[in-house]
Amino acid sequence: MDLPSLSDIQSAHTRIKHFIHRTPVLTSSQLNRMFDCELYFKCENFQKVGAFKFRGATNAVLSLNDNQKKNGVVTHSSGNHAAALALAAGMNGVRAFIVMPENAPSVKKDAVAGYGAIITFCKPTLQSREETCRAIMEREGAVLIHPYDNFNVICGQGTASLELLEEQPGLDIIVTPVGGGGLMSGTSTCAKGINGNITVIGAEPLNANDAWKSFKTGILTPSVNPITIADGLLTSLSELTFSIIKKNVDEILTVSEESIISSMKLIWERMKIIIEPSSATVLAVIKENPGFFKGKKVGLIISGGNVDLSKLPF
Amino acid sequence: MDLPSLSDIQSAHTRIKHFIHRTPVLTSSQLNRMFDCELYFKCENFQKVGAFKFRGATNAVLSLNDNQKKNGVVTHSSGNHAAALALAAGMNGVRAFIVMPENAPSVKKDAVAGYGAIITFCKPTLQSREETCRAIMEREGAVLIHPYDNFNVICGQGTASLELLEEQPGLDIIVTPVGGGGLMSGTSTCAKGINGNITVIGAEPLNANDAWKSFKTGILTPSVNPITIADGLLTSLSELTFSIIKKNVDEILTVSEESIISSMKLIWERMKIIIEPSSATVLAVIKENPGFFKGKKVGLIISGGNVDLSKLPF
Repeated sequence: MDLPSLSDIQSAHTRIKHFIHRTPVLTSSQLNRMFDCELYFKCENFQKVGAFKFRGATNAVLSLNDNQKKNGVVTHSSGNHAAALALAAGMNGVRAFIVMPENAPSVKKDAVAGYGAIITFCKPTLQSREETCRAIMEREGAVLIHPYDNFNVICGQGTASLELLEEQPGLDIIVTPVGGGGLMSGTSTCAKGINGNITVIGAEPLNANDAWKSFKTGILTPSVNPITIADGLLTSLSELTFSIIKKNVDEILTVSEESIISSMKLIWERMKIIIEPSSATVLAVIKENPGFFKGKKVGLIISGGNVDLSKLPF
Repeated sequence: MDLPSLSDIQSAHTRIKHFIHRTPVLTSSQLNRMFDCELYFKCENFQKVGAFKFRGATNAVLSLNDNQKKNGVVTHSSGNHAAALALAAGMNGVRAFIVMPENAPSVKKDAVAGYGAIITFCKPTLQSREETCRAIMEREGAVLIHPYDNFNVICGQGTASLELLEEQPGLDIIVTPVGGGGLMSGTSTCAKGINGNITVIGAEPLNANDAWKSFKTGILTPSVNPITIADGLLTSLSELTFSIIKKNVDEILTVSEESIISSMKLIWERMKIIIEPSSATVLAVIKENPGFFKGKKVGLIISGGNVDLSKLPF
């Protein structure tokens, strides 16, 4: 299996940097005091479409050859990846076919349609999603861009850490959320490529702990119907992301739903930024393991800020 | 009456700049498209204590002479000014006496106490506040720092626009919220001092439109029991702030409660930042008067980000 290297991530950054936002790295003296460490928040909630996913999607679109660009891209997703791929394709004159379950929230349908993508609705089952996707690939010749089981997507996601480490080269630890492992793979490849001494930690909901199980046992173990408020982290690792994580990640730590919610609220209240529950896992890890982080310089990837304001958990 | 000048604001900035955050100026291509103008948000929600008030309070504390510093400062407030003065005084080894109504929310009491201020509770009437304040002034020799009817406070508040215009010298218009007029006075003095051609607009809730009435009639006309969700804008102009506003402000525009709430939600959703209702008035003004702003470069002062997450209006 071909695993990405630091130079692949650097090339991705050169490719996408004029299309993405260079997001700010924020700090909070209150939170630093509270947790007795130095926290550096890489704010991908301020990225286009409100999530780091735009980095990977843009790198995937820009890596297509001319013939592929003519045929377009396809994915099945109802989340941030769908919006990211729709916008990345639209900005580059490439058609995007997005397969969404018919029961997806209308705000998500509207966002994807607003970026000019062609939406095909399917039944809300994985089988229906995959079949619908396959039919579009056959009919249109469109290239499947998987949300994380994709080399170019992973390289794009790694560019967030590249920027973070450029601004804060002295980090001791980097923490990122783990869902399907795309961000975790890109982050860990980048961080270990730059400095083998950086400790790379994955933050995962206890209620969707497939990465933790797989990491501990060495055997890829998907989640079965996980239920967590961190709705961006319901997916399970792929062979590709698991291989990268086994190689580069030092530890995966799980967090409770209560920690996720209280950490999310803490960031909203103290930092005045809107982050989604998945992003709060990175602070929840510090809250649940204070001794591990004490006195360290810690980079945290805030993965996104897309929340339904009418359904807040506090 | 001694009105502040641009150079007073520049001196204030030199005095306070190592104590305050230089807050970011954010933009949103989505909002620019939506309103067909270029919007530059000066984000004082990221200021210490979550509001621009820390600028004025810090300038007031640093402008005390040694004897005054020894005796301390006093104010009556249950809002952002109380927290700002408590922290500004605490950071400079000065005692802060804060008079708060006994029914103030406990989160506000805790914040002020957390900054090390000495709280005295009073009945929730203006008379009781003023009497309690006066008693402390007499007993302790403490200097009253009014939230806006104070030369040094006004100069401090003006430093937000000084930074904004340093980064965006080509602004056509600056919009700030108007409550007691401290921010409006500082902003307009600064903007007109730098460039007489900048249009300075005040944004005021229709339900608390004392500044609009005073501005239109030329007669200082306080609000009587105003009710608005923009709880930072319930106060009325003073003689001092009215004099400055009459001289420097081009227009005061009022906005409905519905506009304030929908503008607040729009900023939360699109920009992923937490702003308080008072801050949303500046975007509400653009929403209600699109023709006036079309094609212009507009600076907006986001005054603060302190909201009770359990009592959101959406």
